[in-house]
Amino acid sequence: MTNRPPNRPGPEPRRVDPLLEVRERKHGQRPGDAYVRIVRPFEDEFERGDEGQLIASERTVLSRTGWTAALRRIRTLLIGRPISSEHEVHERLTKVKALAVFSSDNISSSAYATEEMMRILLIAGVSAFSLVMPLTLVIVLVLAIVATSYRQTIKAYPQGASSYIVASDNLGTLPGLTAAAALLIDYVLTVAVSVSAGVAAITSIAPVLFDERVLISIVIVVALMLGNLRGIRESGTIFMAPTYLYLVAVLGLIAWGLVRQASGDLGTFHAPASWLAQEGPAGALTIFLIARAFSSGAVALTGVEAISDGVPAFKPPEWKNARTTLTAAAIIFATLFVGISWLASAIHVVPDPNEEQTVLALIARHVTGEGPYLIVLQLATALILALAANTSFADFPRLSSFLARDGFMPRQFAFRGERLAFTTGIVALSALAAVLLFVFEASVTALIPLYTVGVFVAFTLSQTGMVMRWWRRREHGWRIGLLINGLGAATTAVIAIIVASTKFLTGAWLVLVMAPMLIALMLGIRRHYRAVERQVALDRIPHGKEVALEPIVIVPIARLDRPARQAIAFANSISQHATALHITNDPDSAAALRERWPEWAGTTELVVVESPYRALVGPLLRYMDALQAQDPDRPIVVVLSEIVPRHWWENLLHNQTSLRLKLRLFGRRNTIVADVPYHLTKD
Amino acid sequence: MTNRPPNRPGPEPRRVDPLLEVRERKHGQRPGDAYVRIVRPFEDEFERGDEGQLIASERTVLSRTGWTAALRRIRTLLIGRPISSEHEVHERLTKVKALAVFSSDNISSSAYATEEMMRILLIAGVSAFSLVMPLTLVIVLVLAIVATSYRQTIKAYPQGASSYIVASDNLGTLPGLTAAAALLIDYVLTVAVSVSAGVAAITSIAPVLFDERVLISIVIVVALMLGNLRGIRESGTIFMAPTYLYLVAVLGLIAWGLVRQASGDLGTFHAPASWLAQEGPAGALTIFLIARAFSSGAVALTGVEAISDGVPAFKPPEWKNARTTLTAAAIIFATLFVGISWLASAIHVVPDPNEEQTVLALIARHVTGEGPYLIVLQLATALILALAANTSFADFPRLSSFLARDGFMPRQFAFRGERLAFTTGIVALSALAAVLLFVFEASVTALIPLYTVGVFVAFTLSQTGMVMRWWRRREHGWRIGLLINGLGAATTAVIAIIVASTKFLTGAWLVLVMAPMLIALMLGIRRHYRAVERQVALDRIPHGKEVALEPIVIVPIARLDRPARQAIAFANSISQHATALHITNDPDSAAALRERWPEWAGTTELVVVESPYRALVGPLLRYMDALQAQDPDRPIVVVLSEIVPRHWWENLLHNQTSLRLKLRLFGRRNTIVADVPYHLTKD
Repeated sequence: MTNRPPNRPGPEPRRVDPLLEVRERKHGQRPGDAYVRIVRPFEDEFERGDEGQLIASERTVLSRTGWTAALRRIRTLLIGRPISSEHEVHERLTKVKALAVFSSDNISSSAYATEEMMRILLIAGVSAFSLVMPLTLVIVLVLAIVATSYRQTIKAYPQGASSYIVASDNLGTLPGLTAAAALLIDYVLTVAVSVSAGVAAITSIAPVLFDERVLISIVIVVALMLGNLRGIRESGTIFMAPTYLYLVAVLGLIAWGLVRQASGDLGTFHAPASWLAQEGPAGALTIFLIARAFSSGAVALTGVEAISDGVPAFKPPEWKNARTTLTAAAIIFATLFVGISWLASAIHVVPDPNEEQTVLALIARHVTGEGPYLIVLQLATALILALAANTSFADFPRLSSFLARDGFMPRQFAFRGERLAFTTGIVALSALAAVLLFVFEASVTALIPLYTVGVFVAFTLSQTGMVMRWWRRREHGWRIGLLINGLGAATTAVIAIIVASTKFLTGAWLVLVMAPMLIALMLGIRRHYRAVERQVALDRIPHGKEVALEPIVIVPIARLDRPARQAIAFANSISQHATALHITNDPDSAAALRERWPEWAGTTELVVVESPYRALVGPLLRYMDALQAQDPDRPIVVVLSEIVPRHWWENLLHNQTSLRLKLRLFGRRNTIVADVPYHLTKD
Repeated sequence: MTNRPPNRPGPEPRRVDPLLEVRERKHGQRPGDAYVRIVRPFEDEFERGDEGQLIASERTVLSRTGWTAALRRIRTLLIGRPISSEHEVHERLTKVKALAVFSSDNISSSAYATEEMMRILLIAGVSAFSLVMPLTLVIVLVLAIVATSYRQTIKAYPQGASSYIVASDNLGTLPGLTAAAALLIDYVLTVAVSVSAGVAAITSIAPVLFDERVLISIVIVVALMLGNLRGIRESGTIFMAPTYLYLVAVLGLIAWGLVRQASGDLGTFHAPASWLAQEGPAGALTIFLIARAFSSGAVALTGVEAISDGVPAFKPPEWKNARTTLTAAAIIFATLFVGISWLASAIHVVPDPNEEQTVLALIARHVTGEGPYLIVLQLATALILALAANTSFADFPRLSSFLARDGFMPRQFAFRGERLAFTTGIVALSALAAVLLFVFEASVTALIPLYTVGVFVAFTLSQTGMVMRWWRRREHGWRIGLLINGLGAATTAVIAIIVASTKFLTGAWLVLVMAPMLIALMLGIRRHYRAVERQVALDRIPHGKEVALEPIVIVPIARLDRPARQAIAFANSISQHATALHITNDPDSAAALRERWPEWAGTTELVVVESPYRALVGPLLRYMDALQAQDPDRPIVVVLSEIVPRHWWENLLHNQTSLRLKLRLFGRRNTIVADVPYHLTKD
């Protein structure tokens, strides 16, 4: 088949160039005083690049008209002006800053880890609180094992040691996706749990806000979303304050407690009568209950992943600095956790059954009294928890973008928005976290059972991946490395099983149901994208320009009016054989239309289809079927005229038929729908 | 400007004719045994009419493929096969049938009118029930006045005396629309009240259904909707049974009561202790309370409109037969209403405060005992009430179609569906009634305050219109006519004021707020349609074929794949100057694309727009602005390639960008969007 471009007489469209000069008629001071000047009206919008290349300026994004201008203004107000790809910065962090940025997630869990253990132990009565210190020490031991194990991972993956990457790399796609699903779910939970705990820290000192905690939590999530859409850089500096403030405040609290202990006036916590009025122990102190309390306390290990994810952001030597920071973070966390658990045991604190005050607030109030120290500590707690939630706003979109890049998630997750942030991932994370906060009423205790299952699954897969890597590579020191990672993998695997089984009925089942569904979904998405890619890739078709047959052009018209005439004129401008189609149930009006036709529409062919069943879409589709049966390769262009009203709500009064038609025509084989707008003007 | 059709070499599209013969390759028994036969594959779908005219058969409506085929099957199952316009029938009704069809609305209100009066009087204690009989007689007197007045209207408007028509005709647009708004609101309330009362009749004998009354009510509305979409003819015959059954059953009940009264063993109703345990009278028997009780009883007058609306359906002489039927209906209703009120007073019945049983059911149970008579009466009541609701399913769509024809409502309300019913009106009425039933929990007592305001407003306007008509025409007997209609108008006006003021706080305010909004909306719709009509009407532009300039054709492409190539090929088939536009933030990929371009796309021009802000839509729109600044009259065709996946949900993974683009391009001046589908096949 040869290339047959249409060969028309008359003036042709000029060569396309937005930087061409145009003549602009200007009016002078006096009436009738007009002159013509030459302007380049779009020189602010485009810059000329190489031959046939233009560079769009920021104005092409910002300048809009009508209602979209208002949307743009709101958007610019909320998240700022667009940022050019050139301006992407990769700031490197010192260890001190990196500690603040990446370990806030881990360190902040000390704010609620002790409390959540106590809430489980309370089921067996306050006497079970004697187990708080031993359990704390076991968890610290596990943390030491995991941190040591992750030091190896960091060295092996200096470009970023996400469990998804480590597991995919060494174990294959399915383990990789399992780690990814576990992490995605846990990132959402990190936001929900951290925000809930942060709000709880505030309401502990401002009880008046307690009833509004769900609303406040969701407002915080929205604020984090906007901040991240704006593109909060992981700049460290502004993030250092909350982390170190919290660190100092909790250490101070522990020191204050030690001093009062030494001076013998630490005293004992007296719970309000109403808390204890509730019935006695609900159950016995079984092994299962102890395991459950351990599982709740194991939230302490969340956030270890964050540092390994962020290795490339460290100053060189990256892996060395990251390792040192990981060790420091683990030691700091252990100190705070042990200190808080010791204080809780020493003063015999009892958690508030109504969740109106946190255990940390109760301890601080007991040790330091109602004073500025309490307020500073609670504010620092709230801030570090917000920061911990913010970590997920970096991790979730980044992991989603890896997954989208690999075809496991919709492509939008890989697109950077105007501010270089992964818009879709940020919005998706916010929406999911907001739903969780709403459903679980921003209660840390209600959310905890869902949390940490995913963390330990991801840990196990990542470290098993490392074991496999040592085994395969047998590099220098592989035996010790394998031993360390093997111990880590075994420990976290055991904990994953303990967590999943002890929390199964209270919520972990939801995660264990969701994760496989998410994995299946991701596999389905990749299968689909791959199938599409195989079909659309150009390397399967021959080179050279593709030629299409001249299309059949039909114009359905309801009556003879200006929009219809405009549509017919357009159809005639793209085809010599355009046919107008009038489908009607009224033979008289059809006859009248036919009579006036030559006068209005010249020689354009008119076909009248009488439709005694008053249907429009059915006869049109069948008519098109008939045309295509005769000439199956030739595309059909359906030219629809649409009235464009001046206000959006006026659309309800127009184009209902066009809309139905388009819905049915969309996806019809070899059918092209061309919308010709007819603009209504101000009357 | 001259007509410049494209002049292309090569084969052209054949003349459009779906009845042309095509060659079909058939395979015989043995492999390789093939022959060609000539078939007319669409001869079942179209019939040839005059020159250039086709007649579509029912098959064009019924035969579908894919998921729409399933929808069609469900639709055919629910409402039947389409009906040709030719088969529209206009059955004429005898007086006996017409009474059953048109007066069910009026007669059925006897089932709840007494009860609703009593519920108001109860506020002043059971002693106020002595007013039931006097109020009943006043309402019967009003009915006599209104019926006499309407006898005149029927004679004057034998083509159908809807208040909208009478008021528009004699008083002008605004009074006409006021009557229309009042009627539309009341039709919705008629459905809600009648269905609620019908369900109450059933739950009175089957208390187990009481908790499901909202669901049952909505199911009945849906059933009525489907029945009317199917096009229940006002055939009379099937409608006679419930009306006459109810008539006989209630008359029998009254007779039974009279007999027991005569024999002295009628006795007194004993309310269960729990009903009376509720605190004593809540208020005094004020004039206001009596007026409110009267207002509640005035529901008795609803349905008088139905007969006047239906005049054209009577056998000739239409107006005479309609008048006689109206009188008969009023007498029958009065008899039933007085009889029920007398029985209620005679046995001192007390309404059930929980609305679990109707007063009529309590009376029947007291008079006839728990037996078959009670069951028959309740079933007859439920059936006549369903019939009354059905009257609105004829009236509301018909009035809406009048309003749509006059441009006061969206055009869809004037279109007859496949079964010749006014689909949009029927669906709108059902949806509104279902919302009311849901919000007011299918309680007659809760709905009554909203009801009847509209009826009396419409009555007043219609009869005032008649007064004006007598005054203007001064035909034979105009003085008496004017007097009668004047008395009717004055009476109903006074009642409208009483109803609106006594029920204002309990619900009528809603109607008094809605009606003006509805009127404003209808006026706005007509203003809009008129403004559009002035702009689009052909008589404002010169005769002769309109000629459009050859359009500028641009093809935005994201990458070089088969869908993009197909879109470019289509663009080349409609224009010699199509330009591909690649907007990208990655200069390297753009360079690669440019390098491979001639190989893949031949001589088609390629413009690369580098977009450092990663935006696509903004630069594209500004580029189009630039083109149009140079050549403002020339349309721009934007050719978009869209992937059509095999399952609808896969659309989430594709075309997100196309969708955003189309939203922004819709309504852009002189811009035509052409969608070129690329169909994915089974992998």
